[in-house]
Amino acid sequence: MEARAEHQRTKHYQSLYSFTTSIGVGLIILVLFWILHYRGGFAWQSHPSQEFYWHPFLMVLGMVFLYSQSILVYRTFRHAPKTKLKIIHASLHCLAFILSVIGLKAVFDSHNLPPKPMANLYSLHSWIGLITVIIFAAQFLFGFISFLFPGLSKSVRQAFLPVHTAIGTGGFILAIITTMTGLTEKVIWTLSDKYSSFESEGIIFNFIGVFAALYGVMVLYMVNETDYKRVALPEDEMALASSD
Amino acid sequence: MEARAEHQRTKHYQSLYSFTTSIGVGLIILVLFWILHYRGGFAWQSHPSQEFYWHPFLMVLGMVFLYSQSILVYRTFRHAPKTKLKIIHASLHCLAFILSVIGLKAVFDSHNLPPKPMANLYSLHSWIGLITVIIFAAQFLFGFISFLFPGLSKSVRQAFLPVHTAIGTGGFILAIITTMTGLTEKVIWTLSDKYSSFESEGIIFNFIGVFAALYGVMVLYMVNETDYKRVALPEDEMALASSD
Repeated sequence: MEARAEHQRTKHYQSLYSFTTSIGVGLIILVLFWILHYRGGFAWQSHPSQEFYWHPFLMVLGMVFLYSQSILVYRTFRHAPKTKLKIIHASLHCLAFILSVIGLKAVFDSHNLPPKPMANLYSLHSWIGLITVIIFAAQFLFGFISFLFPGLSKSVRQAFLPVHTAIGTGGFILAIITTMTGLTEKVIWTLSDKYSSFESEGIIFNFIGVFAALYGVMVLYMVNETDYKRVALPEDEMALASSD
Repeated sequence: MEARAEHQRTKHYQSLYSFTTSIGVGLIILVLFWILHYRGGFAWQSHPSQEFYWHPFLMVLGMVFLYSQSILVYRTFRHAPKTKLKIIHASLHCLAFILSVIGLKAVFDSHNLPPKPMANLYSLHSWIGLITVIIFAAQFLFGFISFLFPGLSKSVRQAFLPVHTAIGTGGFILAIITTMTGLTEKVIWTLSDKYSSFESEGIIFNFIGVFAALYGVMVLYMVNETDYKRVALPEDEMALASSD
């Protein structure tokens, strides 16, 4: 009976995961479509105003999509060995962090380079975003040291794990909030009064926001639903014991 | 031992709850301070531009503070009888809904009444907000019918409860997202280029946003942490049985 229940839960999770990941992929495609179709595409420091567009693309790809896929990896590949999952989790987070650093470089460049230097870090979006990235980096560092290399003692790991997951989940909520405030400020700075005339770019922007919000809500549901939590495998204990 | 563990968890919850509720009260005070100090206070239809300010105040009070306090009521007063908690939960939600309806009336009036009629429901904030209010109203209706009056059979209630809590939690995430996008659009429409010169109103706005985000993250942690879930009392079963 227990095996059957576990099978049911796995099937249920897989359906939700497929739906949610489709929304996440749809979100990235919408952001790309907006940048390429309405905003003239990407550039680097030779055109700082176009360099900006790496910021929304890389932050959504890194801090929303990869961050959440990395959180979900233990549920998505629940039958894989724990050590392998930890390595995938750390690798996805590392990739997310690298993309975010490039994404942050892009936005600072777009503000600081000529023709028109602008102020940095004055907006609510930037404040929450900065807090999010700092939390993310600290989580990565402490998580890596505790759980992967060199790896702390079993009792410390067991005590730290709920803190790591709670802060990681909180950080993802902040990442979604940062996305939504960033979208809102960008659409208003870009379209200004035209936003209220239901132009197509404004509608696309709103759909990007709706996709981001739905993706965030679905990911948080899957992360918090205890039914979907990975059940420890017998070999997990051996992996734990070997590093004590 | 179990009683001691339960006592520890309750103490831990109470500390987090006190901290979080202080942040929530601080959020409401900051919103009031912003409206009274920077925006000239409240009015009704005689001054539509001032009537607007009921919108942020009542939505934050209703859809953020009361909504979350209502969700948390089962944990906050865990030793109270279930029926009593259900009535408090429904009453707080009802009050939140009434405040939201007045808050929505205020924003529509401020757009529709002279001197300058403006478009409605074009922004990302309004789209997500509308979805949130519709989910909230549907949850209230179905929750009331299922759990309170007339109350459906035990098996239906048991099947519906996880759906009710999942959608209720998702709705709260959307309420926080709506708040953050609303703050962002309001500060940009109001301060425009002055936002980037670190004027005091912009800083107050950012702190309102930081408080709202922190409040949201803390509430979601307390809602999702299974340790804080209310343990059923023996008398709950009797209350359930009597309505079957």
